[in-house]
Amino acid sequence: MHETSEFRIGLLGSGTVGGAFAELLEQRAVAIEAITGMRPVLAGTLTRSRGDFQEILDGSDLVVEVIGGIEPARDYVLRAMRAGRHVVSANKQLLSQYGEELWACARENGVQLRFEGAVAGVVPVIRVLQESLAAARVERIHGIVNGTTNYILSEMARTGASYADALGAAQRLGYAEADPTDDVTGRDAAAKMAILARLAYSTPVHLDQVVYEGIEHITAEDIGFARDFGLGLKLIGTAERVADGISVRVHPAFLYGNHPLASINGPFNAVTIESEAITEVTLSGPGAGGPQTASAVLGDVISAMIPPASTPETTEDLAVVNDVASAFYLHLEVADRPGVLAQVAEILGMQGASIRSVVQRGLGDNARLVMVMHPLRESNFYAAVQLIAQLDFMRAAPRAIRVIDEEFAA
Amino acid sequence: MHETSEFRIGLLGSGTVGGAFAELLEQRAVAIEAITGMRPVLAGTLTRSRGDFQEILDGSDLVVEVIGGIEPARDYVLRAMRAGRHVVSANKQLLSQYGEELWACARENGVQLRFEGAVAGVVPVIRVLQESLAAARVERIHGIVNGTTNYILSEMARTGASYADALGAAQRLGYAEADPTDDVTGRDAAAKMAILARLAYSTPVHLDQVVYEGIEHITAEDIGFARDFGLGLKLIGTAERVADGISVRVHPAFLYGNHPLASINGPFNAVTIESEAITEVTLSGPGAGGPQTASAVLGDVISAMIPPASTPETTEDLAVVNDVASAFYLHLEVADRPGVLAQVAEILGMQGASIRSVVQRGLGDNARLVMVMHPLRESNFYAAVQLIAQLDFMRAAPRAIRVIDEEFAA
Repeated sequence: MHETSEFRIGLLGSGTVGGAFAELLEQRAVAIEAITGMRPVLAGTLTRSRGDFQEILDGSDLVVEVIGGIEPARDYVLRAMRAGRHVVSANKQLLSQYGEELWACARENGVQLRFEGAVAGVVPVIRVLQESLAAARVERIHGIVNGTTNYILSEMARTGASYADALGAAQRLGYAEADPTDDVTGRDAAAKMAILARLAYSTPVHLDQVVYEGIEHITAEDIGFARDFGLGLKLIGTAERVADGISVRVHPAFLYGNHPLASINGPFNAVTIESEAITEVTLSGPGAGGPQTASAVLGDVISAMIPPASTPETTEDLAVVNDVASAFYLHLEVADRPGVLAQVAEILGMQGASIRSVVQRGLGDNARLVMVMHPLRESNFYAAVQLIAQLDFMRAAPRAIRVIDEEFAA
Repeated sequence: MHETSEFRIGLLGSGTVGGAFAELLEQRAVAIEAITGMRPVLAGTLTRSRGDFQEILDGSDLVVEVIGGIEPARDYVLRAMRAGRHVVSANKQLLSQYGEELWACARENGVQLRFEGAVAGVVPVIRVLQESLAAARVERIHGIVNGTTNYILSEMARTGASYADALGAAQRLGYAEADPTDDVTGRDAAAKMAILARLAYSTPVHLDQVVYEGIEHITAEDIGFARDFGLGLKLIGTAERVADGISVRVHPAFLYGNHPLASINGPFNAVTIESEAITEVTLSGPGAGGPQTASAVLGDVISAMIPPASTPETTEDLAVVNDVASAFYLHLEVADRPGVLAQVAEILGMQGASIRSVVQRGLGDNARLVMVMHPLRESNFYAAVQLIAQLDFMRAAPRAIRVIDEEFAA
């Protein structure tokens, strides 16, 4: 057995994202080694008060920058790339203001600069724009790229709360910071849209060129009125081709109910990319919390470790199991006489099936008993259905269809 | 100026996808050259009746396989990789049955085998599983990975049509083939879920291990009953961890309205990937039509051409335009007296604004005039709003919020 080599990661920044990244790296180290053949180790962490950048750089194969802000992040990222290191950054401010300088530096030094974590957390929009759609002619991007404001607007719509009250709720739940200015004014979203527009249109786009308008002036009354027109409110970032060039902007906007972004509620992010060849593709997921951004950063780190498009050997030999637990819809055509539901319920109960909802319809000889069950092992459910099918009051074969019974964020 | 090199692509297969790929490659050749520094050329096309595989292979840097089926596709893909060529395939049957052999061959020969087009068309689920989530512990995947059946079920729900009638409509619209067996029995979806399960769980999964059940027995009546429980029906592919291993299966399933897949209607595909670190991420887009699959294939080809995570130089210098066209919601608090709407409408009309819907509410001195406009240039709209604000019947400042007014598939 040959010895596995180490892959040394220098971590710049120890805030929420940095901490979550260090934790995730440790949790997934064995899986990463199985995939990449290299054991990832944290070579050093630079915090505000501790660590020496040059020392960490010297001891690293790759540098992760999650300090945020412009300096010293910019200086460190440039120095790391000039020293031949791949860099993974989650820094939207830096990339939306100094992106061209950084990307040129990466090209000159033949290193990778990855930044999935800078936009929309775990929603893989950077990778999709840079790789899947590299040569697509993108017509338009619409994005909900700020989870804080999407949570606030969702709460205002759901409860009728004022902006101030919904912001307070967001702060209590940790969805908004004590100083929410960057989020609620649209500036955070503007930085992300500048990055997306640069990638989609291969043209320089600086944060200063993005017009943005926030949600501070939105009233619950307007949300209510607009609902009567079938409209729901989101803070939408747009990057689109227009007659004379492109438009990149962020502002509150109403959407009709069939828009792919209309159903994105709570602290979620989502991006719709439109192009003639593909019609549109929509990516959605939780907004940028620490663990989500850390997961995006880790995906970038692993991509830098493995050769492109390699499907690793299987590392598991899991059994493929067939008899799983499912919830079920059950439709029974029965004679409408006393005791029918009781007999059905007894058989179901003997197999461990529990009824979640039931409706009985129709009179005379041809009633319908329709129910939804809580999850149970499929073999038990089908055993019950076989017994039920033999009851003398049954007028047709039972019909069963599975129900996916999961909790999702409102 | 240095001469650009050619990148020669051998195309195996000339059906719907092959034809769409050749067309897309020609359309996007200039953009691809700008990004990659290489000019993509079609080195040869192998059809049923024309072309010689060995000759095409000898003249190619990369081979695209869109023949479908097992042989001769398997033989050609293996020979291409053994000859040191990267391969891009959209062949779900091949990968779900001979994947391990092919991936091992790719690893042994140090070449890329990419196959985004094999699952869910342009929805980039392969790339996301293999790269973004490479080291994530995936708990569950739910997918709508067959556009034909999703269209049929959507139509049954929307119109109350029978299965047979909805299938007929799908065939007339080109969403279902003359022989729809592979789609409606769930076998097509099963092949795709086998591939996704292999990638998510790093364990061998063969098509034969996937249990599947189709939609042929579904009645409009059951869809109607279940709607009363808040349930909508989809053909769902599942790959999830269970106590004793994994479960990979395809069957019709009801979803509650807040499930991320519940709002996917018509011939669309969507995949939700759940993992503790990321909660869940959902990717959606049009199902596998020729142009969509061709776009996924082209994304793979370009990825094989460029070094990883390179952000190319800007190739455009587009103006960033600010005065764009938008639709608007406009809220006016007005005195409730005759002629108010007429005056407002006149000012709007002079600026070229056209009212799409209007509601007037309230009596007495404090009525509300709420309207939604068709799109117009923002500077014109705001000029009208400034004039309206000065009218003597206005009781408060006008409130304007943009409306995104786009057509989307039902």
